Amino acid sequence: MAPAEPNALPFRAKAEIPHFAEERDGWKGYVEWEKYPEKKKQVQELMKKYDFPDPPEFQLVPLPKTNPVLTGERWKQYHYACGLDYIPRDSWDTVLKEKSADMIHVLQFPYNGEPPGDRLIETEMTDNKDFFVRNHGGIPDIDADQFTLDIEGLVKNPRTLALAQLQDETLFPRQSNIVTLQCSGTRRIEQIHEYPGDGDELINAPWGEGAISTARWTGVSLKRVIKYCGGLVDGADNIEFYGADTYFKKGNVHNYVVSVPWRKVKVHEVLLAWEMNGQPLPKIHGYPLRAVVFGYIGARSCKWLYKIRAIKHPSTAPVQMKEYLYYTPQVGKQNAQYSNGFSIQDMPVSSAIISPKNMDQIIHDGKITLKGWAYSGGGHWPVRVEVSGDGGSIWYEVPAENMSTKYFHAWRLWKMDLPVDAEGWLEFCVRTWDNAMNTQPTYVRSAWNWDLHVTSSCHRVKIYSINRSRPATAARLKQLEANNIPIVPITRPMPFDLETDDEYHTAMQSRAWRDPLE
Amino acid sequence: MAPAEPNALPFRAKAEIPHFAEERDGWKGYVEWEKYPEKKKQVQELMKKYDFPDPPEFQLVPLPKTNPVLTGERWKQYHYACGLDYIPRDSWDTVLKEKSADMIHVLQFPYNGEPPGDRLIETEMTDNKDFFVRNHGGIPDIDADQFTLDIEGLVKNPRTLALAQLQDETLFPRQSNIVTLQCSGTRRIEQIHEYPGDGDELINAPWGEGAISTARWTGVSLKRVIKYCGGLVDGADNIEFYGADTYFKKGNVHNYVVSVPWRKVKVHEVLLAWEMNGQPLPKIHGYPLRAVVFGYIGARSCKWLYKIRAIKHPSTAPVQMKEYLYYTPQVGKQNAQYSNGFSIQDMPVSSAIISPKNMDQIIHDGKITLKGWAYSGGGHWPVRVEVSGDGGSIWYEVPAENMSTKYFHAWRLWKMDLPVDAEGWLEFCVRTWDNAMNTQPTYVRSAWNWDLHVTSSCHRVKIYSINRSRPATAARLKQLEANNIPIVPITRPMPFDLETDDEYHTAMQSRAWRDPLE
Repeated sequence: MAPAEPNALPFRAKAEIPHFAEERDGWKGYVEWEKYPEKKKQVQELMKKYDFPDPPEFQLVPLPKTNPVLTGERWKQYHYACGLDYIPRDSWDTVLKEKSADMIHVLQFPYNGEPPGDRLIETEMTDNKDFFVRNHGGIPDIDADQFTLDIEGLVKNPRTLALAQLQDETLFPRQSNIVTLQCSGTRRIEQIHEYPGDGDELINAPWGEGAISTARWTGVSLKRVIKYCGGLVDGADNIEFYGADTYFKKGNVHNYVVSVPWRKVKVHEVLLAWEMNGQPLPKIHGYPLRAVVFGYIGARSCKWLYKIRAIKHPSTAPVQMKEYLYYTPQVGKQNAQYSNGFSIQDMPVSSAIISPKNMDQIIHDGKITLKGWAYSGGGHWPVRVEVSGDGGSIWYEVPAENMSTKYFHAWRLWKMDLPVDAEGWLEFCVRTWDNAMNTQPTYVRSAWNWDLHVTSSCHRVKIYSINRSRPATAARLKQLEANNIPIVPITRPMPFDLETDDEYHTAMQSRAWRDPLE
Repeated sequence: MAPAEPNALPFRAKAEIPHFAEERDGWKGYVEWEKYPEKKKQVQELMKKYDFPDPPEFQLVPLPKTNPVLTGERWKQYHYACGLDYIPRDSWDTVLKEKSADMIHVLQFPYNGEPPGDRLIETEMTDNKDFFVRNHGGIPDIDADQFTLDIEGLVKNPRTLALAQLQDETLFPRQSNIVTLQCSGTRRIEQIHEYPGDGDELINAPWGEGAISTARWTGVSLKRVIKYCGGLVDGADNIEFYGADTYFKKGNVHNYVVSVPWRKVKVHEVLLAWEMNGQPLPKIHGYPLRAVVFGYIGARSCKWLYKIRAIKHPSTAPVQMKEYLYYTPQVGKQNAQYSNGFSIQDMPVSSAIISPKNMDQIIHDGKITLKGWAYSGGGHWPVRVEVSGDGGSIWYEVPAENMSTKYFHAWRLWKMDLPVDAEGWLEFCVRTWDNAMNTQPTYVRSAWNWDLHVTSSCHRVKIYSINRSRPATAARLKQLEANNIPIVPITRPMPFDLETDDEYHTAMQSRAWRDPLE
């Protein structure tokens, strides 16, 4: 277990710890808030009594090297104050049970984690154990037999459906799609590193390149379920999703609520899924039922989905209205209003170099192999991936045979043997073109935004190139090998002279020494 | 006292600790090596018996936040092994006695330190207590009355002169000049931060913008002293300086030895100085006598100068031949030879923004005051300083009245009220033009070199701008003030909502919501 974050105040009860009963039998870790304004009010009053620990400063100072990277004491303590201390505890138990042992836990609670890079791009379909997780609260533990889904709001015939009904193929044909989900926080660390900001304030998970994964999802098209309820009425144009997880924001408590427009549902791009890669959803991924919204930011693919409401206008719940907004570079803490921001739905074209890693020092013979992923949301797909070994002056196309299958709604993995003649520090970068000829902004700076979302600029890694096909380098490597001294890290001093005094004099003579003679 | 560096092996004697006597009465901390090949050989054999601690890794991982930043265990242990343990100890005592308490000790031993930025640019002449120090060994403690200077090699009449003779105005007219000295490591931290490298292997001091200072130096022109020795003979074209400090490099021991070309001496640009800003040289700055070489890298201004030799070709001593070399970006650990490098003598045009500091978050009313220094070596001087608030697209000239006096061989301090309308993260940068219309390379990348010398690219600082003259920002600041909440650090979450739901709805209506209606 990780140590407490450096500036975490220990939790001390400052008011009576309430007991909020779980709402339904067989639904552990689920507290219904949205139906009970008085319960929400009670939490609001309670929260005012506490000074919760500040989130640790990791933007203006470097991130800790721990795993979990951040532990989320503040959010744990929200739960403690509400008598929900079992939620963070059970949530972490589920992580340990369901995810690979070597996940990078960017935030312990609410749990946020990404797989190590090499496994991320090993297979087109991400293993369920490795699939990235971005949670906003705890992980409910729901008995599928006791699960029901409410469909209400502006539908002709509101209904409550059991999971078995949704799975009844005489009612709803099965739909199965390969879909990539991506958190808009993917590659946030690049924005943090260059220009710290907010990252939606509460969580601010310092994601690397791994907040993206792909699976085959199976379930039913939401459109058919809405039709089964008689369709929409009264100008409804958005569909709201309610997740059974508890979500805190600015001293208030909510269930996790987001929405998608009806036009997205209409084209069968919103799935109610209970299967992930041929297996029941893991608890951490929304068991027993979740939404999967193709080509959208992952945040709309609501997990532990227990209620669907047809509404007019997008949801005004905080996750939809107050988070996942894309601001301009001049908007920040000093002037931001929610309405300045642009609500993130379709994800743009993006890509990343996963291997080699930033700051790697590579011995090669004139070629370096680059591997990574490329993705475009909103029904677009990567058509061309280009890599550069010189910071983006000369681009090489990844050959078609080195790119994985094309899907309407999924990433493509790619691999490229890049010719590298130059030595020293080089900047490798990648950009992807999608089928609408969208490509990526040039620098992180080009698309920096206050909440640090959607780092879609060309992904860049600095690589120190050691080209063994060059004679001087081959000689040096041989000399090091003979002395049993590794060349890396390159910052470790060379323990012997770089040339003999005789060699030096000969070389300097051939250069006519340093200065002119007259 | 600083803790040992993280990877420092404790020193354990592995051989008999020798006793190297100090060479001369009244010369403490001075061991003559150059005259005694057998003593050098003895040290060389001794050094082979030890595994000295590796220099700490601070390039591929962040620098410690300590002061001293680095302690130099490796170099201390070189001295321990040679029975010279009093040298690091006395050296640090001298630092504490002679330098300001708040110096930034970038390396404790050999001592390297720079003053805090605000004091660096407070006055044209740097206070002796604040003047940067870049030592390569300990600090000899020499009795001026027992001091002599040998002038030998390719001069007609070799002589040994007492300090009193040099100061005898009937023999030598006094010369006094305002001269800036700059270490070629100034601003090295920018190169380290972007692309780690070597930095001459042994010391690698992580300098900021403060390895530059200015003083009025008083003494005699070296040319007159050479003439007093009858002038040069036999094609001599360089003058070698011997410093009384002990200097280790790659398992060998030396006195500190460098050279300058005769043509530099001939124009009275090499001073033998005993006075610094009207006071005797502090011990740490070379008491009782040092060279001051105008417009050259500080490394040539040899301290504790006890011997001068006229020679043919530049010195082949390691500091001159094997350090302070300027490599091209493709030269590095894998292929570097000393002869690949260009020996740094004249320093190029350079400048730095000292205030505000990188990552500052500034509330202002449409203008931000920038302050810094500008310098050009080799007899050039800064004519024009330009600053940019947008990373280098639009440049503003610093008004002449905001620049300090022009000198042939010294920096100019400058100050500028820069109009800043934009908010958010901005990149401020400075470039200087000298009287030969030289200006600075654009990016650190433009002039990166393996030994991390001469970071002369435009100096850039990231600033978060909060412009109170804008209504939205003024309102937010008022709101924060009313709640007694500071706006900085900007990464600390805002504890209240950014606008009311009503305001949000009104604003969104005026934007026709997010999506088209049809």
